[in-house]
Amino acid sequence: MGRLLVVGSMAFDTVRTPFGEATDVLGGSATYFSTAASFFTGVDLIAVVGEDFPEQHIEFLQSRGIDLTGLERRSGATFRWRGEYTYQLNEAHTLETQLNVLETFRPKIPDQYRSPDMLFLGNIDPDLQSDVLNQVARPRLVACDTMNFWIDGKRDALWNVLQHIDILIINDGEARELGQDSNLVKVAKDIMARGPKQLIIKRGEYGVLMFTKKQVFGAPAFPLEYVKDPTGAGDTFAGGFMGYLAASGDCSEENLRKAIIFGSVMASFTVEAFSLDRLRDLDKKEIDHRFREFKRLTHFDDLT
Amino acid sequence: MGRLLVVGSMAFDTVRTPFGEATDVLGGSATYFSTAASFFTGVDLIAVVGEDFPEQHIEFLQSRGIDLTGLERRSGATFRWRGEYTYQLNEAHTLETQLNVLETFRPKIPDQYRSPDMLFLGNIDPDLQSDVLNQVARPRLVACDTMNFWIDGKRDALWNVLQHIDILIINDGEARELGQDSNLVKVAKDIMARGPKQLIIKRGEYGVLMFTKKQVFGAPAFPLEYVKDPTGAGDTFAGGFMGYLAASGDCSEENLRKAIIFGSVMASFTVEAFSLDRLRDLDKKEIDHRFREFKRLTHFDDLT
Repeated sequence: MGRLLVVGSMAFDTVRTPFGEATDVLGGSATYFSTAASFFTGVDLIAVVGEDFPEQHIEFLQSRGIDLTGLERRSGATFRWRGEYTYQLNEAHTLETQLNVLETFRPKIPDQYRSPDMLFLGNIDPDLQSDVLNQVARPRLVACDTMNFWIDGKRDALWNVLQHIDILIINDGEARELGQDSNLVKVAKDIMARGPKQLIIKRGEYGVLMFTKKQVFGAPAFPLEYVKDPTGAGDTFAGGFMGYLAASGDCSEENLRKAIIFGSVMASFTVEAFSLDRLRDLDKKEIDHRFREFKRLTHFDDLT
Repeated sequence: MGRLLVVGSMAFDTVRTPFGEATDVLGGSATYFSTAASFFTGVDLIAVVGEDFPEQHIEFLQSRGIDLTGLERRSGATFRWRGEYTYQLNEAHTLETQLNVLETFRPKIPDQYRSPDMLFLGNIDPDLQSDVLNQVARPRLVACDTMNFWIDGKRDALWNVLQHIDILIINDGEARELGQDSNLVKVAKDIMARGPKQLIIKRGEYGVLMFTKKQVFGAPAFPLEYVKDPTGAGDTFAGGFMGYLAASGDCSEENLRKAIIFGSVMASFTVEAFSLDRLRDLDKKEIDHRFREFKRLTHFDDLT
C-alpha cells in the first residue's frame, strides 16, 4: 500500500445553499482530499492553518489516520471562504475570500514525506506546485488540480507544472479555458499533447470524463434525492480517486476507471451534508455498497 | 418485428451554429424520429406538410421504408423553424417559428395504422396527443415528448395525456418545470406517481437518465470531436430508442437500457452534420460499431 502526499488548503467555510447554511465549518481542498483518501490508504498532508484552528479538527483528521507532520501552524487566522449556491447546485458563487495565513504559504516538505508513492497537488499557485515537485523524489504518479484564477493569471507557470505531472483533474469550465476551445475532445487532445498523460474532467451533477491517450471513459454522477451542499465534492472525488489508486498500486487504464468510480462514490457522500459531516460516520461497507449501485446505474448488456 | 407509429412535425429548418449554417433544410420531430427508427423497424408516419414540400424529401423517407400513407399534404406552406446555437451547443435559441399548415393540424389515423405495436407522440398540443390515443387500439407501449410551451400553457391537458402513456421522454429543463422541483430524483418520483411508468431525461451533451419504478440508469453522451448541429438530436434519440424496442419486441428493464444506448448512438450521428445528412449515408455496421464504442466508453470492472 503506497503512501499518498497531498498539498492544499485548509479552511473555514461559510456556506449557504437552498437547503440550509453552515458557518465557519471545516473545509479546504487538502481537508476533503485527505479525509476521502483516508478510507483507502495512508495520507501525508501539507497545509497551513492559523492559531484559530481548533484542536477538534486536528483530532478528527488524526482519527482518520492522516499524518499531520506537514501541517504548519502559523500566527494569524486560517483561510476563510464564504460562498453560496442557488438551486443550480453545479456552480458556487464566491462571496468572500480571506486568504489570511494562506497568503504567504510556502510548502515545506518534511524529510519523511520526500519519497511519496503518489502526490496530489491541490489548487494552489502553480509556482508553489512546482516548488513541491522539486522537493520530492519523482513519485510514481502525480495528479494536479487548478482553477481559472491561475489559468488566466499564471498560464505559463501552470503549463510548466503540467509538463511534469501525470493526471490533470479539473472541471469542464476550467478545461475549456485552459484548452481555449469549447469542444472537450479537442481540449483534451491539446492538453495531453503538452504534458499530462490523462485528463479527468469533473462535471458536477453530470459526472466525469477521463481522457487517456487512446480512450475516453465517461461516468454519470450518482443521482441523489437529497443534496445539501456541493462544497468539496471535487476534492473529495480526487481523494477517493487517488486513495484507491495508491491502495491498489495499479495504474492501468482499467484500474483508473475503477478509481474514478470510487472518487464519484466518495463525492456523492460528501454532498449529502454540509462540510465533511457525511464522511465522519461513513464506513467501507457503505462505500462498497454504493460502488455496486454505480455498477447497476451504468450497466447495459453487450450487443449480441 | 412490431410496427411503430409516430405523430409529429415535418419542417423546413434554418439553422446557424458556430460551425456553419443551413437554410430551409429538412427537419421536424417526425422526420428525425422516423428516419432514426427506420434503421431498426418499419415506421408509419402521421404529419402534415404544405404544397411547397419537395418530392425529393418524400422520396428520401420512402427510401428508408417509412410508410407515408398518413402524411397529409395541404394547401399552404410547410412549418418553418429558424434558430441558432452558440458554442454552448446544449441550448437552441429560437429566432422564428412559422406554424403554417401545422396551425390547424388535426391528426387523422388511417385505418391500417390503428393497431400499432408501439406509438410515439411527438411534441404537439397535448389535446392532439389525446386525440391520437383515442383513435388507436392501446399499443403495447406508448412514449411521449412535450415542451415547456405545453407544460406552462396546457398543464392539465398534458397530465391527462401522461396518465395514458408508458414512457415520457423530455429534457432536464422540461422535467424540472413539469415536476416543479430542481432535484431530478424527486421530479421523477412525482411524475411517475401520476402516470408514466418510466421517465427518460435527455441532457444533451451530458447524456441520458432513465428512471423506472425501482431503478435509475445513466449514460453519458458519446464524446465527439466534431459537432456541427444539435438540431433533431432529441427526436433522433427517441427514434433510435423506440425503433430498437419495436424491432426486438422486448420491453424489459435490461432491454430499455440497451434501447437508450441505441438512441444515444443515433443522436451522436445526427449532430455530426446539419439536418438529417449524417443519417443519409449511415449503415447498420456503423451503428453497431458505435454501440460497442459506447460499451467501452462506460465500462468499468466489478468490485472484486
